[in-house]
Amino acid sequence: MTKGNINVSVENIFPLIKKFLYSDHEIFLRELISNATDATMKLKHLTNIGEAKVEYGNPKIEVKIDKDAKKLHIIDQGLGMTTEEVEKYINEVAFSGAEEFLDKYKDKVDDAGIIGHFGLGFYSAFMVADKVEIITKSFKDEPAAHWTCDGSPEFTLEASDKTERGTEIILHISEGEEEFLEEGRIRELLTKYNKFMPIPIKFGTKEINDPDFTPKTTKDKDGKETTEPHKQITVDNIINNPNPAWTKQPADLEDQDYKDFYRELYPMQFEEPLFNIHLNVDYPFNLTGILYFPKMTNDLNIQKDKIQLYQNQVFVTDNVEGIVPEFLTMLRGVIDSPDIPLNVSRSYLQADGAVKKISSYITRKIADKLKSLFNNNREDFEKKWNDIKIVIEYGMLSEEKFFEKADAFALYPTVDGKYYTFEELTNAIKAKQTDKDDKMVILYASNKDEQHSYIEAAKDKNYEVLLLDSPIVSHLMQKLETTKENISFARVDADHIDNLIKKDDTKISKLSEEEKTKLDELLKEVVPSEKFMVQLEAMDSNAAPFMITQPEFMRRMKEMQQTGGGMFGMGNMPEMYNLVVNTNHELVNDILNTKTRKKQERLINQSLDLARLSQGLLKGEELTNFIKRSYDMIK
Amino acid sequence: MTKGNINVSVENIFPLIKKFLYSDHEIFLRELISNATDATMKLKHLTNIGEAKVEYGNPKIEVKIDKDAKKLHIIDQGLGMTTEEVEKYINEVAFSGAEEFLDKYKDKVDDAGIIGHFGLGFYSAFMVADKVEIITKSFKDEPAAHWTCDGSPEFTLEASDKTERGTEIILHISEGEEEFLEEGRIRELLTKYNKFMPIPIKFGTKEINDPDFTPKTTKDKDGKETTEPHKQITVDNIINNPNPAWTKQPADLEDQDYKDFYRELYPMQFEEPLFNIHLNVDYPFNLTGILYFPKMTNDLNIQKDKIQLYQNQVFVTDNVEGIVPEFLTMLRGVIDSPDIPLNVSRSYLQADGAVKKISSYITRKIADKLKSLFNNNREDFEKKWNDIKIVIEYGMLSEEKFFEKADAFALYPTVDGKYYTFEELTNAIKAKQTDKDDKMVILYASNKDEQHSYIEAAKDKNYEVLLLDSPIVSHLMQKLETTKENISFARVDADHIDNLIKKDDTKISKLSEEEKTKLDELLKEVVPSEKFMVQLEAMDSNAAPFMITQPEFMRRMKEMQQTGGGMFGMGNMPEMYNLVVNTNHELVNDILNTKTRKKQERLINQSLDLARLSQGLLKGEELTNFIKRSYDMIK
Repeated sequence: MTKGNINVSVENIFPLIKKFLYSDHEIFLRELISNATDATMKLKHLTNIGEAKVEYGNPKIEVKIDKDAKKLHIIDQGLGMTTEEVEKYINEVAFSGAEEFLDKYKDKVDDAGIIGHFGLGFYSAFMVADKVEIITKSFKDEPAAHWTCDGSPEFTLEASDKTERGTEIILHISEGEEEFLEEGRIRELLTKYNKFMPIPIKFGTKEINDPDFTPKTTKDKDGKETTEPHKQITVDNIINNPNPAWTKQPADLEDQDYKDFYRELYPMQFEEPLFNIHLNVDYPFNLTGILYFPKMTNDLNIQKDKIQLYQNQVFVTDNVEGIVPEFLTMLRGVIDSPDIPLNVSRSYLQADGAVKKISSYITRKIADKLKSLFNNNREDFEKKWNDIKIVIEYGMLSEEKFFEKADAFALYPTVDGKYYTFEELTNAIKAKQTDKDDKMVILYASNKDEQHSYIEAAKDKNYEVLLLDSPIVSHLMQKLETTKENISFARVDADHIDNLIKKDDTKISKLSEEEKTKLDELLKEVVPSEKFMVQLEAMDSNAAPFMITQPEFMRRMKEMQQTGGGMFGMGNMPEMYNLVVNTNHELVNDILNTKTRKKQERLINQSLDLARLSQGLLKGEELTNFIKRSYDMIK
Repeated sequence: MTKGNINVSVENIFPLIKKFLYSDHEIFLRELISNATDATMKLKHLTNIGEAKVEYGNPKIEVKIDKDAKKLHIIDQGLGMTTEEVEKYINEVAFSGAEEFLDKYKDKVDDAGIIGHFGLGFYSAFMVADKVEIITKSFKDEPAAHWTCDGSPEFTLEASDKTERGTEIILHISEGEEEFLEEGRIRELLTKYNKFMPIPIKFGTKEINDPDFTPKTTKDKDGKETTEPHKQITVDNIINNPNPAWTKQPADLEDQDYKDFYRELYPMQFEEPLFNIHLNVDYPFNLTGILYFPKMTNDLNIQKDKIQLYQNQVFVTDNVEGIVPEFLTMLRGVIDSPDIPLNVSRSYLQADGAVKKISSYITRKIADKLKSLFNNNREDFEKKWNDIKIVIEYGMLSEEKFFEKADAFALYPTVDGKYYTFEELTNAIKAKQTDKDDKMVILYASNKDEQHSYIEAAKDKNYEVLLLDSPIVSHLMQKLETTKENISFARVDADHIDNLIKKDDTKISKLSEEEKTKLDELLKEVVPSEKFMVQLEAMDSNAAPFMITQPEFMRRMKEMQQTGGGMFGMGNMPEMYNLVVNTNHELVNDILNTKTRKKQERLINQSLDLARLSQGLLKGEELTNFIKRSYDMIK
């Protein structure tokens, strides 16, 4: 048996980095800026604790393009490196610089979070550069060093005359990577990844009005005033906001600050957010962030992937799937946490303990915020309900804990614009809408226009009708029916109103049994049986003579299938309608007593057409013919 | 100045691999199976060219779980390694094994494509295993070797008593990665990545009926027949199909073979594909594959990401964005090409020369296939049109080359179920539908039911009406209007028919100018002007008395905005309708001559309601009231 060490042949480390490390070359800039930031934050820390006896000042990071020479410069004013440190940290591909620093200052930096998460950073430069130079001067009183490497393992190291503290990285951009010499492209990358990094990043200059200059206004002899032009000065163009709102304390922020930050995050978004939730926790995990509720539409699919994930102010991704519960991916905003493992699969993420805790913390905070909004300004909450209900309903369906909490603030609007909580609703309708079997029937409509005549019929009985129109509400009703006791939901057009909420009082039919049999036979001969089940009912004489209904169960199952779920195969069942005929209506009596069969048929068909019209079922040629007949009748 | 070599410290290569190499741990299995496949294919090649004097046989790859010992085994019967080769290929992290082999046999293996693309493969084992063993015996007459490494750079290498040729990899699965000891999980991975790899992969066993055994049937004394049970035997369970359809020649495949392969690719898909396109090219790039046209719905978003990308039968991804033109991402099937660069950004992909060529090759093949389907069996093509039009229309809009080719097979169906090409359509309608300014007007409807009365009015004039109902057709019309000469599209309800196609003949109005002025004033007093522009027209006396129209331009711009494009801001414009009143209709005369103002108003309102009904604009309370009035009128 032999023993030995695996020998990593150095000729192969660069191809490895180039080919396999990152799928996306653009990442190199994020890495180098992260390193520059770390070097600056470390210096700040060392001056704070007295280990570095230098002036920290107001350091910046500068990014410069030299298009002619095909060079990109990244310059920081951080702690810099001595020749010895370059030897140690750069020439040994050890990725341990940050770790060693962390070890040394562990107890002192616990809350500083100054260690970058992108330790491999520097080497990613070789993805886009043939040759890389480092010119660096340490904060310690030692000469500056100049390191050069052309991507082979061979490097040169010599003295440099750099006098200012800090590190300059020079990338000699390779053929095929020239996009990284374009100002627009670099600006795009800086904006994407570094928009909120903690050290100011300078990229170019801009002209502004000199703040120390007040233009003079002079009068000429005619009394005409002339103001001299404002003096312009050139200042650094800082592309980032080093102190984004989420890093501040909620107590230090006004409502307008949150709105301004939303505009910073989504400059192309014209609508204001409805409200926000400031996340701020440091035990048992570290997480800050601000989430916003935007106005939601009823489309579940198009509004995801707007939340941005950061780690210590460095942008990581805008796909937070697996980190926040699915129903919250419709929100917008920022989450910043060093405790979310990166580079792992989504399925692993979902199983990770820390991530689970983060996810349930966010859910709880959202529920608490909604509850306090409801309690503090119910009127305003009601106004916003339609724009946020889809998130809340989705949450109630998918997270049991959220369902329980939502009972306190989930609203059930009526067609008249009232908003009930579930408990209020129960109290309001219990007396009137409990049927003879002691079941409380909650009536609802999905569309005020389409179901207008049915809503009116329910209102005539002094019943409340809810307006439930979100695409997943059928699932929510199903859940409420199984969770709450002795309730059921029924859409107003599921049957005629006396059947939807059955009471003990029996209606007396104006027709004799004999007449009913005759009517039933007549109707069944004229009305197509494959489309409508005829159902004779003794209703109020002023209720509609003919009415088309669609049983609740079947319709709801079909709806549930459309948004996933429900009973398998129901989606393909044909539509089934009942034709409810009011035996107490004068017109029905007329039909029975009309002499000729032809006239009877005409009356039935016209009435059936009107009933179908009311349910939106009269279309195409049938509608055209109905309209023609109607014009003739007017004349 | 000093010179030196960057020193890659070996303690750090494993954390690097573990943490950064792959975002998804599951990839390790694909890597190891790829290596096993390569080792087997290499042996096949060596025996073929006479360099290996051994029997190739019918080698398999076996995957075995030992759940109790927390081990996963991957065993191949490929060329194996000698101790010297283990030293060279495993102990040197050089990733060069495949390249060296390629160099050596370059000219001989040009078309064999036996080099795996996942050269880093073996080391990925350490993502999920604490300890990895290799037991391997070369096809050469040398003793077997046993290599063990616990993830530190230290390894042991000793002799083994393995006698069969090939390599066995044993992974000692780490804590936290136990999912890779679950049969279901491994089966899932093998199915995902290795379903079509060229060497049979055994995973467990299964019972089948013994093919050599014929059950005997015996009769008892009453003549009752009894058949003895079939004999079961245990056979290897092979989870892959080593010879998938796309690797075969089109000439060797029947229609049923393509359908069977579709079922293999999409076992959960119940509907059959409409037709397929077999891709097969080896110059200037290498590409094979089969694409299928499934039945499409009108929803553009939900049906993407069904095409699977392979490299030499190894699954890579099901996101082919950037590789095939966007309009073809709605298709299904397989593309296999070693020439598509992986691990690059999508934007880089789209700029890559080879990928551009591949993309336009696929587009051309699709266009050619559609043309030949149209030429060979037009009737069948017409039947399928509605299920495929969305892809073709999308392609016509987004790829200029495809637009040109599609002229030969893109169809324009009429409301009566006829299908024209653009040229046929032009010939058919030129005579009748050219207006007095020599412009040819193509009439269309988007919904046969909703626009029924308007379609009828056009048909009464012997005009053809197209049925164009896909969501992007408004964009296509816009494109056709600017590409073809002197044509314009008009929806049948954009105006009354005599205005849509203006001829020279002037209609004579039955009303005098004075009467018209009176009528106009009356109508403007009764009809709400914020909703309808009144427009008096001398039409046929049997055309509708009242009719509501919506101007083409405005409506089309609004539609285009809904699917992206169109003129900015049009989406928010209010709906604008015209009320066309037929001055030659008897009812209009009646209105004028009715004595009381109240009766006039009632007539106008009832007529307006009927016109609105015909355009689907009478809703809610207004509809309920209309119906109530109508019941009263019947009585």
